[in-house]
Amino acid sequence: MTELDLVRDLAEKNSTKIVMLVADGLGGLPLEPGGRTELETAVTPNLDRLAARGTSGLSLPVLPGITPGSGPGHLGLFGYDPLTFKIGRGALEATGIGFELGPHDVAARGNFCTLDATGNITDRRAGRIPSAESVAVVAKLQAITIPGVETFVKPVKEHRFVVVFRGEGLDGRVADTDPQATGVPPLDPRPLDAAARKTAEVAQEFVRQARGILAGEPKANGMVLRGFAAKPALPSYEELYRLRAAAIAVYPMYKGLARLAGMTLVGQATSLAEQIATLEACWNDYDFFFLHFKYTDSTGEDGAFPEKVKRIEEFDAALPAIERLRPDVLIVTGDHSTPSRLRSHSWHPVPTLLVADTCRPDGLTTFGERDCLRGGFGIFPAKHLMLLAMAHAGRFGKYGA
Amino acid sequence: MTELDLVRDLAEKNSTKIVMLVADGLGGLPLEPGGRTELETAVTPNLDRLAARGTSGLSLPVLPGITPGSGPGHLGLFGYDPLTFKIGRGALEATGIGFELGPHDVAARGNFCTLDATGNITDRRAGRIPSAESVAVVAKLQAITIPGVETFVKPVKEHRFVVVFRGEGLDGRVADTDPQATGVPPLDPRPLDAAARKTAEVAQEFVRQARGILAGEPKANGMVLRGFAAKPALPSYEELYRLRAAAIAVYPMYKGLARLAGMTLVGQATSLAEQIATLEACWNDYDFFFLHFKYTDSTGEDGAFPEKVKRIEEFDAALPAIERLRPDVLIVTGDHSTPSRLRSHSWHPVPTLLVADTCRPDGLTTFGERDCLRGGFGIFPAKHLMLLAMAHAGRFGKYGA
Repeated sequence: MTELDLVRDLAEKNSTKIVMLVADGLGGLPLEPGGRTELETAVTPNLDRLAARGTSGLSLPVLPGITPGSGPGHLGLFGYDPLTFKIGRGALEATGIGFELGPHDVAARGNFCTLDATGNITDRRAGRIPSAESVAVVAKLQAITIPGVETFVKPVKEHRFVVVFRGEGLDGRVADTDPQATGVPPLDPRPLDAAARKTAEVAQEFVRQARGILAGEPKANGMVLRGFAAKPALPSYEELYRLRAAAIAVYPMYKGLARLAGMTLVGQATSLAEQIATLEACWNDYDFFFLHFKYTDSTGEDGAFPEKVKRIEEFDAALPAIERLRPDVLIVTGDHSTPSRLRSHSWHPVPTLLVADTCRPDGLTTFGERDCLRGGFGIFPAKHLMLLAMAHAGRFGKYGA
Repeated sequence: MTELDLVRDLAEKNSTKIVMLVADGLGGLPLEPGGRTELETAVTPNLDRLAARGTSGLSLPVLPGITPGSGPGHLGLFGYDPLTFKIGRGALEATGIGFELGPHDVAARGNFCTLDATGNITDRRAGRIPSAESVAVVAKLQAITIPGVETFVKPVKEHRFVVVFRGEGLDGRVADTDPQATGVPPLDPRPLDAAARKTAEVAQEFVRQARGILAGEPKANGMVLRGFAAKPALPSYEELYRLRAAAIAVYPMYKGLARLAGMTLVGQATSLAEQIATLEACWNDYDFFFLHFKYTDSTGEDGAFPEKVKRIEEFDAALPAIERLRPDVLIVTGDHSTPSRLRSHSWHPVPTLLVADTCRPDGLTTFGERDCLRGGFGIFPAKHLMLLAMAHAGRFGKYGA
């Protein structure tokens, strides 16, 4: 029996509320050997108080030593094994700009490139043309029509865009057209599996028409397609956990990831204060609330230790308003660590805290990486966090008699 | 290579003795936030002394957040992954009353029900007729004979009984006949797989004959069958671990679970003192001894915190007599937690202790949930406890050269 089958079998409905607060990139590192991490430096009276009431631990997003992107990081937190459920590059790119993929869609990442007179690539990124220019070229590609499928072309940033084909019988197993080299022409979209023949033909027709449209462009006179992928088939929160799940996020990527899990996007918040107002406003309509806070990650990526500390303190200050709603289970975690010393995502386990009346005390009184190491959950796979959430919400029946 | 294949490959015989003491439902919760659990409250000089000598940890019966019944809880302790090896409802019910299932048996749970003149169910539990009445009706059903199979009908409690069919070619995949509703007749036993056709026919014949026999009963004039299941195919302790294993339990359920693993039931003990006398009496005849103590669970289920504390102290007081036998490996654990605050089994990890001369000290001097969190085994899957038992008994060869 798989873990998800177990979840399906045991999940029960009741009236409890679960809040999962994801402070993106929460975990960190000290700047000096033996020093304090960002979280250990921050003054976090609310997190410390909650740590004393709840149970803490360190979650492993994928496996020890594996640094996840936002996709696998969030899949784990949502209870999907990130090694089993993969979000293809094209699907993630589409998701990241807020494009809602349907079950009959195949998405690919597009890069504009520069071709010479013989059709060979001279610049694989078309001189990184500015987004404003790129948007205009993308608009021209939107004129492409292919019989039997619906085609969407959406700008991303600079030379990057997304193509989505929608239609019956499409399949993501199509080879990249990017030769990963200059001095050669883009490749043809070839099927990697017989089931992807139609998709490859559709992509070939797209490439054919695009060639004509782009011919006169000064820089972006060519393009390559990469990472063809359908929407990953994630069982939804409703099906799996019997939870009505709401996502309250500011950025398209996280809204997209939540949609893949079947969560409902609620509100149009552009700040943490607005996110909390949204949470309050929709409190009676859902059982599970995913609230995403971006800035602990972006300050980490910027290498801005003091700014990350401030963002953690801002996050801490928002907790009492959430506690006033009296969630039955309140979770604070991150999708991965983003130590400002590394200026990037990392593999270090993520400080995680769950507060509920059924918590077994672990003796902690503060919340930080070193504390969590002594927490009651120990070091555990992030994909098991939802099991703990469901258990502490009284939403699981007993396994076996 | 599966974990059990590894065990088979590495297991070696020697003259060591392993004792596994299972205090059912051992783990608990404090009544007040930050307070002490039952185990932390109990005065346990022997457990504390053993914790100082041995290695402690917290075992996870199935997965984080998953609350097991006694079946999966014990399978894990015995080294069988409770998600791989499942005991079907019928097989567990038969096991629970001490019926020893054979390899050609299919068991089902029976419920007497009340039917109206048209054959529709009016009471799915036949007014919960008292056991004494039920036993008499069960005795009548024992007259049923079906060509080609042997049939056993055994009373359980009130309106519940067990039917076991024994014969070649039987298969548990037969649908329940309980419609889970009143105002409709019981369903027919249908095969859920072609392999179960014969079993379904046997069950149909049983139902047909039972209808005639029950027709005159005032309340129990009908019955439904549920949870058809064969004996789970567990490799035995002898085959897997090369251990001659004895089970010393008071209650039928735990005797039955031990028999499923191929242990020999020893003695007729009805108390902990008698269990220890049995252990002493059979000490030379076995390598492994499973001793089950029920009352830490039943007091937890009753919500009786002080009584659970007393039962833990009673259990602690019995330890010196067991130590006098000088087991090479002495284990104290539980099959799950039963916090008296929750009055039920729970998912919280279980305090576990292993004492052997080869233990690496973990610095603990007392035995409780918070101590075990800092124990040398950390938080670990219960199914790995037998690996540790075998290792500390010097019964495992090296894996690879």
